Amino acid sequence: VGPEGGGYPLAVLAARVGGEVAGDGERRIAGVRALADAGPEHLSLLTHPRYRRQVVASRAGAVMVPAGKRALHAAAAGRDLLVVDDPARALTVLLPLFHPQRRPAPGVHPSAIVGEGCSIDPTAHVGPYAVIGDGTTVGAGAAIEALAVVGRDCAIGAGARLRPHAVVYDGCEVGDGGELHSGAVIGADGFGFASRVAGGAVEHTKVPQVGRVVLEADVEVGVNSAIDRGALGETRVGAGSKIDNLVQVGHNCRLGRGVLLSGQVGLAGSTVLGDGVAMGGRSGSSGHLEIGAGTQVAGTSVVMQSVGEGQRLGGVPAVDLKAWRRQVAQLGRLDEVIRRLRAIERRVGIERGTDDEAAAGDGGETPGETK
Amino acid sequence: VGPEGGGYPLAVLAARVGGEVAGDGERRIAGVRALADAGPEHLSLLTHPRYRRQVVASRAGAVMVPAGKRALHAAAAGRDLLVVDDPARALTVLLPLFHPQRRPAPGVHPSAIVGEGCSIDPTAHVGPYAVIGDGTTVGAGAAIEALAVVGRDCAIGAGARLRPHAVVYDGCEVGDGGELHSGAVIGADGFGFASRVAGGAVEHTKVPQVGRVVLEADVEVGVNSAIDRGALGETRVGAGSKIDNLVQVGHNCRLGRGVLLSGQVGLAGSTVLGDGVAMGGRSGSSGHLEIGAGTQVAGTSVVMQSVGEGQRLGGVPAVDLKAWRRQVAQLGRLDEVIRRLRAIERRVGIERGTDDEAAAGDGGETPGETK
Amino acid sequence: VGPEGGGYPLAVLAARVGGEVAGDGERRIAGVRALADAGPEHLSLLTHPRYRRQVVASRAGAVMVPAGKRALHAAAAGRDLLVVDDPARALTVLLPLFHPQRRPAPGVHPSAIVGEGCSIDPTAHVGPYAVIGDGTTVGAGAAIEALAVVGRDCAIGAGARLRPHAVVYDGCEVGDGGELHSGAVIGADGFGFASRVAGGAVEHTKVPQVGRVVLEADVEVGVNSAIDRGALGETRVGAGSKIDNLVQVGHNCRLGRGVLLSGQVGLAGSTVLGDGVAMGGRSGSSGHLEIGAGTQVAGTSVVMQSVGEGQRLGGVPAVDLKAWRRQVAQLGRLDEVIRRLRAIERRVGIERGTDDEAAAGDGGETPGETK
Repeated sequence: VGPEGGGYPLAVLAARVGGEVAGDGERRIAGVRALADAGPEHLSLLTHPRYRRQVVASRAGAVMVPAGKRALHAAAAGRDLLVVDDPARALTVLLPLFHPQRRPAPGVHPSAIVGEGCSIDPTAHVGPYAVIGDGTTVGAGAAIEALAVVGRDCAIGAGARLRPHAVVYDGCEVGDGGELHSGAVIGADGFGFASRVAGGAVEHTKVPQVGRVVLEADVEVGVNSAIDRGALGETRVGAGSKIDNLVQVGHNCRLGRGVLLSGQVGLAGSTVLGDGVAMGGRSGSSGHLEIGAGTQVAGTSVVMQSVGEGQRLGGVPAVDLKAWRRQVAQLGRLDEVIRRLRAIERRVGIERGTDDEAAAGDGGETPGETK
Repeated sequence: VGPEGGGYPLAVLAARVGGEVAGDGERRIAGVRALADAGPEHLSLLTHPRYRRQVVASRAGAVMVPAGKRALHAAAAGRDLLVVDDPARALTVLLPLFHPQRRPAPGVHPSAIVGEGCSIDPTAHVGPYAVIGDGTTVGAGAAIEALAVVGRDCAIGAGARLRPHAVVYDGCEVGDGGELHSGAVIGADGFGFASRVAGGAVEHTKVPQVGRVVLEADVEVGVNSAIDRGALGETRVGAGSKIDNLVQVGHNCRLGRGVLLSGQVGLAGSTVLGDGVAMGGRSGSSGHLEIGAGTQVAGTSVVMQSVGEGQRLGGVPAVDLKAWRRQVAQLGRLDEVIRRLRAIERRVGIERGTDDEAAAGDGGETPGETK
Repeated sequence: VGPEGGGYPLAVLAARVGGEVAGDGERRIAGVRALADAGPEHLSLLTHPRYRRQVVASRAGAVMVPAGKRALHAAAAGRDLLVVDDPARALTVLLPLFHPQRRPAPGVHPSAIVGEGCSIDPTAHVGPYAVIGDGTTVGAGAAIEALAVVGRDCAIGAGARLRPHAVVYDGCEVGDGGELHSGAVIGADGFGFASRVAGGAVEHTKVPQVGRVVLEADVEVGVNSAIDRGALGETRVGAGSKIDNLVQVGHNCRLGRGVLLSGQVGLAGSTVLGDGVAMGGRSGSSGHLEIGAGTQVAGTSVVMQSVGEGQRLGGVPAVDLKAWRRQVAQLGRLDEVIRRLRAIERRVGIERGTDDEAAAGDGGETPGETK
């Protein structure tokens, strides 16, 4: 690895990422490793005090630390330090030096089935047993990997990559540079039914879902996530948005640019997210509402009404994050509140039944028992 | 589109759906579009006041509105109106006129692998690289699409449709007219183990899951949903039930007819749902309980004990919906409760430590920080 | 079934599982069935009082009951009883007698695509349209079933089984005896980005995920679950751990031995679980924390800070299970608390606005409306 087969001098890496070396800039770095796995020839990193003890035990020769955090520099004392403004960003530069990305080779595998009227760029890869419907275009350098399925009249942009078993339904678009991980499904039917009671029975008749999904450029969709097609019109995900695993995006949602949806997020239909909205793990929206640009929703929280830009929210239903923190703290004080209430009542001479205190301690049916 | 190539007169569409025209019944309609996408040749719809502003800005020539809501008629003033009792139901009639459903052609693709002793109706479709196990029957007009897998001794009913990558394990049934979206998996093993501590270590031994899954007629299962086979006996989903994406149905659940499970719902094992139960997005049940017919569970709520028919529930654990709403409102008042408590204590001369107020405002560790 | 074609005498089954017969040990048992499905020739079981009524209605000839629970013996009176210490464990012995497991036959299907430099044990099965990358090893008796995908440089252990459509990304390991159900995806990229605001827009640059996943021996992963590869280093799941459907395990999580993750659990990145941790359905962790050995987390609860060994937790954020039960009970008493507060205020002469009581009953916007 590296220019001379013996890795890169630490100073060279520092120059690549606009950082500074504190220590020996000539140290040869053969790779980037986690603290527990690193040896003297490796660069590791320390970005949070919770890993201080690990850095002490680590055999790493060099450690990358954020410029602003002097306590972390001290914790890593005795190693050569690579000091950078943003370690995560530095990794986006350093890791490709040691781990060049492998792109599938151009060409259509003989076992792939490509429909009529398709336009497959000669530099694109179509893997074994991939199936592509009629009238679909696949751009330069794109990869439709093994067993992936693309419907008819779809457009897969230049450099886009569909991992094995990704599925795109008819008429949908994946923008340039997009990536769909295995099991991601783009453009299946939204959940829309006309329901009525007929002869005493509930009957749900499907409303045809005749819209489509457009993923703009550089959208990543994680494992087994589902983005449903519009009932009418589009479901749209803005450029540069990143969607984690097992996420559900309902029909007719519109996501702005640079949106982040962490694992297991669920957006009910017609949710509109402004640019840069970030939703924590398993958070959600109840649908038909708008979340303003830059708003952050804490994990597990569910937004149930429209909110403006730049908010920080938490809870079910989601409220201001600070208010939620207070609620959580106060929930832990309800015992005390009820005790104080009783003490006051005694003081002012209000009588209560004697079963009251007993009831206070009775949780009744146990919720959420693990099985 | 339409009888004369120029679309349908609005009055003809009204007759099809049993509605009435307010305006020009001769207006030619070339399609149904969302308000934002519609032009003068399109029919759009307005069903909720929240979209009033969009209707004003829309270029739609005609707008469908619900009969009972006069304010919506007024909001759409200046357009030709199609007034119907139930716009969703009208769409089930109108959309197929403009978007005829494409069914896969009959026949077994030469690359499909069909086991021994199967009975595949000649009008059924079996797509490329589909794999069907021994002894399975596929009914008239059914479609096993590309890369779908059906195990041995299964029955796929007439007109049923398995989208690409849908999977049915051995011995399961998909009823007539059913639809499995991509990544839906029917009949995998339930989660059952015999656990014990042996030599200080926990050891889980699998309990063989020897039951099966029966989906009755007209059941739709969304993307990447999982319905586990019974441990013993069946997991059963009643006719006409509709299941959204990323839903988990545990072993030995029994769902009645016309049940609705929205996205990310989770039913732990042996949950019994009566006819017409509707569970909102990401709601759930803790298992081994029964929810009576017609009961509605709000999104994100988890039912932890059996409940009767026709209830409306919310919360974790789920309680009566109104009680939950009150709880949510009262949570927002805990600050005030504690302030009032302190004021009373001062009034009646109860002393408290001075650190008390400080503690009230301290949320401690921040829950649910987005990363 | 059984040694003489007529099933097994109940006494023989009792001997196999170390149990005792109360009744006729000569009764021939042709299979094990649920109470509702059993006939006189079947063994059924009763392990919880909630199914007492079903046992009365059942036609089962014999019923298995746990030794310690006399009330259940009484409930099953009139049947021949098979009394065992642990019915679930007895099933792990009894069911294979009646349902011998079918393993795919050894051999590589001619349609399977196996890369260069692979080592496939001659006793392994590689099914139709399975795709295996270069340099991968598949152990004795392992099964890579139809349409499963294994990347390059992977190791699939002896006796491991990948069901149809399971996917393993490059460089990952599945230990001996492991099982991946359909749609399970091992080793996809973790969710890691370097984010910044550039020109007013949020921009997320992917941090290459260069680690891998190691599943130790006897790990089972359910339908459509996702276990992400480490950003650097490993994501590791300890021997004998069992993971249910639709579970998300983020990058760099480390699970001990014998861990149980029920359906829809979500672990954010760098969660460390000790041996024997059990997480109930849809519970989770917010990441970068440690849960001690043997700790049990109730369904739907989310752990937001590190906890020790042997705890029982519930709630969002998770607290001691008993404390959570009290919180839940007290939430239901907030109405009463506010009423009592008002009564005291009246008694001690504190004035309040008249709109106060009205506000108490106002839930405001309805949360979680089912759609």
